[in-house]
Amino acid sequence: MTLKKSWVESANSAETDFPLNNLPYGVFATEGTAPRCGVAIGDMVLDAAAAEAAGLIALEGGPLLQSGAWNPVMGAGAAVWKDLRRQLVTLLSEGAAEAEALRPMLVPLAGATLCMPFAVTEYTDFYASKNHAFNVGTMFRGPENALPPNWLSIPIGYNGRASSVVVSGSDVRRPWGQLKAPDAELPIFAPCKRFDLELEMGAIVGTPSSGPVSVAEADDMIFGYVLLNDWSARDIQAWEYQPLGPFQAKATATTISPWIVTKAALEPFRAPTPPRERELLPYLAEPGPMLYDIDLSVTLTPAGGVENTISRTNYTNMYYSAAQQLCHHTTSGCSMRVGDLLGSGTISGTEKDTRGSLLELSWGGKEPITLDSGETRSFLEDGDTLTLYGAAQGDGYRVGFGACAGTLLPALDDPFAR
Amino acid sequence: MTLKKSWVESANSAETDFPLNNLPYGVFATEGTAPRCGVAIGDMVLDAAAAEAAGLIALEGGPLLQSGAWNPVMGAGAAVWKDLRRQLVTLLSEGAAEAEALRPMLVPLAGATLCMPFAVTEYTDFYASKNHAFNVGTMFRGPENALPPNWLSIPIGYNGRASSVVVSGSDVRRPWGQLKAPDAELPIFAPCKRFDLELEMGAIVGTPSSGPVSVAEADDMIFGYVLLNDWSARDIQAWEYQPLGPFQAKATATTISPWIVTKAALEPFRAPTPPRERELLPYLAEPGPMLYDIDLSVTLTPAGGVENTISRTNYTNMYYSAAQQLCHHTTSGCSMRVGDLLGSGTISGTEKDTRGSLLELSWGGKEPITLDSGETRSFLEDGDTLTLYGAAQGDGYRVGFGACAGTLLPALDDPFAR
Repeated sequence: MTLKKSWVESANSAETDFPLNNLPYGVFATEGTAPRCGVAIGDMVLDAAAAEAAGLIALEGGPLLQSGAWNPVMGAGAAVWKDLRRQLVTLLSEGAAEAEALRPMLVPLAGATLCMPFAVTEYTDFYASKNHAFNVGTMFRGPENALPPNWLSIPIGYNGRASSVVVSGSDVRRPWGQLKAPDAELPIFAPCKRFDLELEMGAIVGTPSSGPVSVAEADDMIFGYVLLNDWSARDIQAWEYQPLGPFQAKATATTISPWIVTKAALEPFRAPTPPRERELLPYLAEPGPMLYDIDLSVTLTPAGGVENTISRTNYTNMYYSAAQQLCHHTTSGCSMRVGDLLGSGTISGTEKDTRGSLLELSWGGKEPITLDSGETRSFLEDGDTLTLYGAAQGDGYRVGFGACAGTLLPALDDPFAR
Repeated sequence: MTLKKSWVESANSAETDFPLNNLPYGVFATEGTAPRCGVAIGDMVLDAAAAEAAGLIALEGGPLLQSGAWNPVMGAGAAVWKDLRRQLVTLLSEGAAEAEALRPMLVPLAGATLCMPFAVTEYTDFYASKNHAFNVGTMFRGPENALPPNWLSIPIGYNGRASSVVVSGSDVRRPWGQLKAPDAELPIFAPCKRFDLELEMGAIVGTPSSGPVSVAEADDMIFGYVLLNDWSARDIQAWEYQPLGPFQAKATATTISPWIVTKAALEPFRAPTPPRERELLPYLAEPGPMLYDIDLSVTLTPAGGVENTISRTNYTNMYYSAAQQLCHHTTSGCSMRVGDLLGSGTISGTEKDTRGSLLELSWGGKEPITLDSGETRSFLEDGDTLTLYGAAQGDGYRVGFGACAGTLLPALDDPFAR
């Protein structure tokens, strides 16, 4: 695939995240206006709500772009997803007859406030990059017992908290929680001291289901993908997570990137999951390549400092695909709904600088990383801004996600003061 | 407190779950009509939507009773909750001037189909009855290590799946899942063989929050309570739950009773949590009695057979109250929303016949229970109907929940056939 040319000049650069090949879906506001559906193109946002209101976009069952969230489009079904993309490509292609009518509906990205692109119905997080599971397991149980016995059979997942999901740019407040030092008998209630990020991808369920669905059906149900930072309080987690899993350690915030990159835009970049080390049960067999070749990176910017890249990895480091995770999620008969969000789990490569969390990068705090300024980090410090980036690289163009950023604010003095 | 008399005669019996003292909120439909808000009174349902439409009920910010769910009332705030209850007591009291106008708005309970009383926003389940935790821990780790080290400090909870919550009367399909026999090396994908019930209470969040809330504030946020059966696939759970907690084992279904018994109706029955075996951290201190004296029971009715009571217990067997659980839930900054549902965790007493799950009643299947017919049960069999009952006993009246029932259907032949 090569770059498709648009009449929006900035979309024709090899450097933009948002060429005509991408057309990701977001929700934006400008000063004094309500949040509305938009489509990123180069350094502009097309006001898709305005285009629909003007009759330049017409969707079956519409209007679908007027609610300030993409859930109505998702709920309209895969035929509408396809038709909308076809209409957008036509409207924004070089030489489009509608260019002059659309031009007033373009808003500079730099002047737009990006909002949550969809209402998160429920949020599930997985644990599905083998390098990550191996690293964490090695730290806690040694390399021989690093992977739990079920790990090579089950795409391990747990339910997260949908109310914790926020859009890039939202500040994150360091939480309080129960902490127990390894040598202490009893816990204390105090601000988290080991606050961390987790580099993940999020898959968005666009088609609902009731009852079990196959991997192929699951893949068809996915509307698109976002970057996802699953902020994690490691010390809260260590004390609380046995026997029923992480709870408050993962409930402070989960940041997603503001643009939903559609599955359609990612099609040229499909890549297989790695060879199976243990044969999977037949229900998890994949009908084709279900991952995507997406380069990912994490930067850390201390308050007033410069941006440091602390990790570079790729989505193909996943052992299980989102389609496999979604299929497994439904095996018990669990219904899935429009707007469900599935976190991939932390994505780590094999090399040290490809690890997707500070827990792994600093090896549990024993090997702090050094920033350009000479400062070190085992875990996050107040004022740190963490940014995830992701893009699939085409021939002379890329399909990017935009930034997924959040700044860590200091803990409250008294968490119960209202 | 004694019985308050109503002009609805059947509400004046000591045997009804729904005297004037109760006035629980549900959603009902009759043949050919859409689900609408109703209030149970004796053996009737007051069509509250009709009463509001006729101007007999008037609420600030209303109409609030026309949506087929109680979420708008919850979201209107505690002053509206109080005002609605006051209006209902007036309307339904003996001698009320409005009796004749209201009589046509009464529908026999026997002819009403009961629907989900509210939209479940997110669902969290806890593990907070000490006897239950001790029983389960003893089975898996022996009595010395029965309670996890954090259990006496943390109201342990995990996020469940809101899409799994169904109303009493909904059938439940035996799930498929990954099962690994203790002596097998690898799992198989097969129908669950150890399907179980869990007797719980559910607390419904009516007031949203952002940031941590105290136990007292948490108590104020609770709108009401329901009975809750957290159906559990024990064999799926055993293989999947380490390290991140139960997932598909708990996602098949969670059945709630159809009537929300308001906190106001339960006020006369407040009871304290038991003495602390380890001093709680100050943030979990209770400003007063936060449990309720509610008798609970479970019956099992085999297909075509008679109803057997298999457990009798009381809500005061909880170690942590719903207010403590909700407070803990917010410590990390986790936002709570209108319609969030909190399961108490399985409620077990100290005696064998007060245990709230078959896992405990049959001691992991080693001591099957015997039904009146001579049949035995270690876990549930296809066709079994499980029913939970609950009521607080007043002086000559009771505040009951109605039945919380579900019948287990056989597993699908092929879970992926569509």
